[in-house]
Amino acid sequence: MNLIRFVFGNPLKTENLASEKLTKIRALAIFSSDILSSVAYATEEILLALGAALAGTFSLQIAGIIVGLLIVIVASYWQTIEAYPNSGGAFVVAKENLGEFFGLIAGSALLIDYTLTVAVSLSAGANAIISAFPSMADHAVGICLSVLLLVVISNLRGARESATVLSIPTYFFIGLVLLMIGCGIFSSSALAKVSDQAVVVVGGVSKISSWLVFILVLRAFASGCSVLTGVDTIASGVTAFKNPQYRNAQITLLFMAILLAIMFLGITFLSHKYAIVPTKETTAISLIAQRVFGKGFLYYCVQFATACILFLAANTSFSGFPRLASILAKERYIPTRFAKLGDRLAFSNGIVFLAVMATFLILVFNGDSHSLIPLYSLGVFTSFTLSQAGMVKHWIRKRGANWIAKAALNVFGSISCLITLLIIVDSKFLQGAWIVVVLIPILFHVFRKINRRYLETNTELDLRNGRIGALILPMREAQPKVIVPVSRIHKGTLAALRFASSLSDDVKAVFVNIDSREVERLKLSWRAMNFPMPLVLLSSPYRSVVNPLLDFLYDQDERDPERGKAIVVMPSFVPGQFWQNVLHNQTAAILKTALLYRQKSSEQTRIIVEIPYQMKI
Amino acid sequence: MNLIRFVFGNPLKTENLASEKLTKIRALAIFSSDILSSVAYATEEILLALGAALAGTFSLQIAGIIVGLLIVIVASYWQTIEAYPNSGGAFVVAKENLGEFFGLIAGSALLIDYTLTVAVSLSAGANAIISAFPSMADHAVGICLSVLLLVVISNLRGARESATVLSIPTYFFIGLVLLMIGCGIFSSSALAKVSDQAVVVVGGVSKISSWLVFILVLRAFASGCSVLTGVDTIASGVTAFKNPQYRNAQITLLFMAILLAIMFLGITFLSHKYAIVPTKETTAISLIAQRVFGKGFLYYCVQFATACILFLAANTSFSGFPRLASILAKERYIPTRFAKLGDRLAFSNGIVFLAVMATFLILVFNGDSHSLIPLYSLGVFTSFTLSQAGMVKHWIRKRGANWIAKAALNVFGSISCLITLLIIVDSKFLQGAWIVVVLIPILFHVFRKINRRYLETNTELDLRNGRIGALILPMREAQPKVIVPVSRIHKGTLAALRFASSLSDDVKAVFVNIDSREVERLKLSWRAMNFPMPLVLLSSPYRSVVNPLLDFLYDQDERDPERGKAIVVMPSFVPGQFWQNVLHNQTAAILKTALLYRQKSSEQTRIIVEIPYQMKI
Repeated sequence: MNLIRFVFGNPLKTENLASEKLTKIRALAIFSSDILSSVAYATEEILLALGAALAGTFSLQIAGIIVGLLIVIVASYWQTIEAYPNSGGAFVVAKENLGEFFGLIAGSALLIDYTLTVAVSLSAGANAIISAFPSMADHAVGICLSVLLLVVISNLRGARESATVLSIPTYFFIGLVLLMIGCGIFSSSALAKVSDQAVVVVGGVSKISSWLVFILVLRAFASGCSVLTGVDTIASGVTAFKNPQYRNAQITLLFMAILLAIMFLGITFLSHKYAIVPTKETTAISLIAQRVFGKGFLYYCVQFATACILFLAANTSFSGFPRLASILAKERYIPTRFAKLGDRLAFSNGIVFLAVMATFLILVFNGDSHSLIPLYSLGVFTSFTLSQAGMVKHWIRKRGANWIAKAALNVFGSISCLITLLIIVDSKFLQGAWIVVVLIPILFHVFRKINRRYLETNTELDLRNGRIGALILPMREAQPKVIVPVSRIHKGTLAALRFASSLSDDVKAVFVNIDSREVERLKLSWRAMNFPMPLVLLSSPYRSVVNPLLDFLYDQDERDPERGKAIVVMPSFVPGQFWQNVLHNQTAAILKTALLYRQKSSEQTRIIVEIPYQMKI
Repeated sequence: MNLIRFVFGNPLKTENLASEKLTKIRALAIFSSDILSSVAYATEEILLALGAALAGTFSLQIAGIIVGLLIVIVASYWQTIEAYPNSGGAFVVAKENLGEFFGLIAGSALLIDYTLTVAVSLSAGANAIISAFPSMADHAVGICLSVLLLVVISNLRGARESATVLSIPTYFFIGLVLLMIGCGIFSSSALAKVSDQAVVVVGGVSKISSWLVFILVLRAFASGCSVLTGVDTIASGVTAFKNPQYRNAQITLLFMAILLAIMFLGITFLSHKYAIVPTKETTAISLIAQRVFGKGFLYYCVQFATACILFLAANTSFSGFPRLASILAKERYIPTRFAKLGDRLAFSNGIVFLAVMATFLILVFNGDSHSLIPLYSLGVFTSFTLSQAGMVKHWIRKRGANWIAKAALNVFGSISCLITLLIIVDSKFLQGAWIVVVLIPILFHVFRKINRRYLETNTELDLRNGRIGALILPMREAQPKVIVPVSRIHKGTLAALRFASSLSDDVKAVFVNIDSREVERLKLSWRAMNFPMPLVLLSSPYRSVVNPLLDFLYDQDERDPERGKAIVVMPSFVPGQFWQNVLHNQTAAILKTALLYRQKSSEQTRIIVEIPYQMKI
C-alpha cells in the first residue's frame, strides 16, 4: 500500500477538481503535440508508399494537396469552435445533429483512433531513438512499453503538471525543425545531387505504367494523411482556454495549422532535395538532420526532440480517451465505471483500459509504426466527415448570419474528408485498414446493446407510485421458512442457527450426504448437542453439494407458497488472510452464486443471510 | 453444457466406484509403461552425456552398473510390497517410519517427479514421431500439447478402459524391441564397422585427461539412471492385483525388472555395435531401428510403438499424481479439494493441476526432452532413498523372521540410492537439477504451513461442550441495529428496507454522497415516498463508497455495545445474465468483501443479509 501511495500519490479531494486556464502560447504547446509530432513520420510514409519505383517524385505535390486538405479542415473546425464552445468533439457534434447512429460511429472511430495514436506515437518515438542509436534496434518494444508505463503512471497520478513544463518539448521540437528546414533550404551543398536524382527518377517513372503511378500516388496520399490526425483536439478542448475562449481557440488553431504546413512542406522538400530513402533502421527525419547538421550535437538534439514530442503525443491521448469514455459512460453507452473519478481525480478506468489496448497493439505489431499507420487515419477521417456533416445540419437548423456560406464550407469539408476516407479505405484495406472497418460496427453494436440494457434495467427497477414507503410493514407475524445448510457443527454453524431461530420457528438444518461415514458422525453430535430444529439429510449420488440443496429449496418454496420463498441462512467461513480461501472449499460462495444465477424465473426475491465466522488467526 | 457432457460423459454415481482386479499379465502392461518406456531415451542420454570425446565407450559398462542398481532397488521393493500390501508408496512408507519431515520430502519429490514424467514422456514421444517424420520437427510442442489434451480428457472421463486395451501398446513395444535386439545381435553386417569405430574411439580417449573421463562417465551414469524412474509404481498399486495380491505383485515386479534389463542392455549394446551418434533430429532408438530393419515397415512400427508407450507413460502419471494428491489432501497437507471425486469419479482437481503444470514445463522447455532429463531422476532417487530408509526403520521396529537380513538389504539399497542421488545432484546441478533442489524444500514448507493452518482452524472452530444446542435462544426481544446502504430508490431497495424493518425497529438507511446533485434527488424522493426510517447521508470527500460506510458501521457498533454489532442488509442487484455484471458497479460485492476482510479483530460475528433483486430481462 505504501508503495502504491508513493507511485500514485495520496488520494485527492473532489473539491480540488479545478482546472488551469491556458494562454494561447501554452495551449498551442498542449494541444499541438499530437498533430505536430506527426510530421516526424508523415513524409516518410509518403516516401515508403511511393516505393523505389517512384522514389521521391510527386512527394511535394502530394504534400501540397494534403496542406490544401488541411486548410479546408481547419476552416471547418474554425466554425465548429464558434458553434460548440463547450465541447466540439466529433461524438457530440455528430450525435446532436445526426442522431445516435452517426454519433456512435464517430465515437467508435475516435476511441480506436486514440488507441492507435498511443501505439503509433510510441513506436515512432522509439524509431527516433533507434535511428540515433542503431544498437537499440532490438529494443523497440521495450522502449515503447517503458515510456507507456511512465505515461500511465503520470496520468493515474492525475498529472496536473504546469502547462509550462509540457510546452518545453513542443517548442524545442518546433524550433529545431524550423532551424533544420532553414539551414537545409539555404545550404547549396546538395544541389548537384538533386538534378542527378531527378534524372534517375524520371527514367524510373517512364518504365512503369501510368495506372500504377496513379495507384502509388493515391497510396502515398493516403499514407500522408496521417499528418492530419489531431486537428480536432483543439475543438474538443475549448473550455481550457482563457477568455475570450472560442476566439483564442480559433487563433491557436490557425497558428497550429500554419506551423504544421511549414514543417510538413519543409521536411518533404528537404527529403526531395536530398533524395532521402528511409530504411528500416533510420527514419527520413533522421537522414535529413544528418545531411543538414552532420552527425553532431544538433543532430542528436533533433532526434531527442522528435522522440519527446512523439511521447508527448501519446500522453495527449491519455487525456482524450478517458474524457471521451467518461462522456460515453455518462450517456450509458459503456459501463458506468468509466465515468468514475479515481483517487487522484483522473478517470483511472479509462486510462488503464487504454494502456492495456495500446500494449496489445504494440506487442501484436511488434512496435513497428509502419504497419500501424494503415490502420491509423481511417478513424480520424471518419470522425472528421461525420463532425462536418453534423455541422451542415447544425447550420440548416440554426440558420443565423451567413448560414448558407457556412454550411457550404462544411459541405465542402465533409465531402473532401469523405473522398479522402474512401481513398484511405481503398488503398490501405488489405494492409490493415480492414481491422478498423470491422471494428467500428462491432463497437457501435456493443455500445447500443449496453445502452439498451441500461435503459431496460432502469425501467424494470423503477418505482412509479409515490408514498410507497408507507407500505413497508414489518413481517414479524409471518413465520418464514428458514433453511440452514450445515457442513459440520462448529462455532460458525451455531451463530447461523441462532440467527435463523430468531427469524422464525420453522428452521431446518440441512446436510448433504456425500461421505456416509461423515453422516454418522454428524447425526451423533447433532443428537448430543440437543438442537431444537430438525436435521434434514439429503442424499447426493453424484457428490454435488449444490444440486440437492437447490432441489430441496425449490421444494420448500412450493410448500405453503403464501409464506414466501424459503430464506437461506448460510454460515460462512472467513479466514484471517485472504489467500487462505484456497484452503477451503467455498461451498457457501458456490451455493450463493447458484442461488442467484440458477433461480427459476420468479418475481419473488430470495433472502440470503450470510453469517460470516471470522477467524482470529 | 451439452458439449461438456459429450466430451466428458455423464456424471457417475458414487456407488459405481469399484475397481477391476488385474491378472499378472495385464498388471505388467499397466504398471510397466512408465519404466519400460524409459529405455526409449535412457541409452541416448548416456551417449549424449559421454559426448563426442568418448563416443560410445563405457556405455555398456555404465548400463551394466545401472542394471546392478536396478537389482538392488527391485530387491528392496520386493520387501516393501510384502510389508505394505495396501500402499507402499514412498510418502506412506517414509511418513510412517521416518516421520512427517521425511514423508513430506518424499511426497514433494514424488509430485515433482510425476509432473516431470508427463513432460519428459510426451517430449520423448514427440521425438519418436519427429525422428520418423522429420518434417514435423517444428511441431514438437504442438504434438506434446495435443496428446496431453487427449490424455487429460480421457482421465477426466474417469477412464476405466479395460486393462486389455491398455496392454496392447505395451506388449507391442516389448515385442518389437526384443525383435530388434535379436535381429541386431545376430546380424553380422555391421561387425566390420564396430572395429573401425573402436579404433577411432580409443584414439579419442587417449587425448583427454582421465579426470575428465571420470566426470563424463559420472554424468552419463546420472543421465542413464533416468531408466529407473517408475520402478516404484507397482509398490503403490498392490491393491489392484488379484489374490494373492502381494505375491502376484512381487512376481510382476520381477518380470518387469528382467524385461527392463534385457531391453536396456540390448539397446545399449546395439548402439555400441552400430556406433550410433544420436542427433537433435533423430533419436538413438530410431537410428538403431533403421540399421536393423532398414527404413521400412518394421522401422515405422518401432517408432509408432515407442511413441505409444511413451504417451501411455504420461497417462500413468495422471493416475499416480491425483492419487498421491488425494492422500496428501486427506491428511490436510494440500487444499482438501484435491481429495474430492469429480463427476466421473476421478480426482478432477489433481488431473487439471497436473495438466497445467505439465503444459507449463513443456512450454518453458520447448518440448525438448534433453533439457528436462537433468531435472528428472533427482526426485525419483530422493523418494527411493527415503522409502528404503523407512523400510530399515520398519524392520528395526517390527523385527520378525530374518529381519536383520532384510534390514541389511534395505540399508544397502538406501545407501546405493543415496550415492546415486548425490552423483545426480553433483553432475546435473547447473543443467537444471537445482530447480528441483530448490523446489522440494519450498513444497515441503508449503505443505507444512497448510497443515498447521488446517489444524489451527479446526481448533478454533471446535465446540467442546456438549448439549450446546439448547443455548440457541431466539433473539426476538433484542432490537438489533440494522443498517441498509442505499444507492438509489428502486424495487431492490424496497425489498431490503422491508426485511430490515422486520428485523428491528432501529433501521437506518445510509447513502454515501459522491455527487451532490444525486443527493438532492434522493432526499426529495425519500421524503416523497414517506419511508418510516431515517436516511443518513455520509460525506465522502475522496469519492470512496466503502470507507465512509465502514466508518459509520464501526461507529454504530460502539453505540450500545450490548445490542451487538450492527446488522447490514444489502440490496444487491442480480442481472439476468452473468456477463451483465460488467455493467454494474458491484458496490454490494465490494462492500461485502471489505466487511469480511477489513474487520477490526473482534470475537463477534457481523450478520450480513443480502436481498438479491433478480432481473427478469
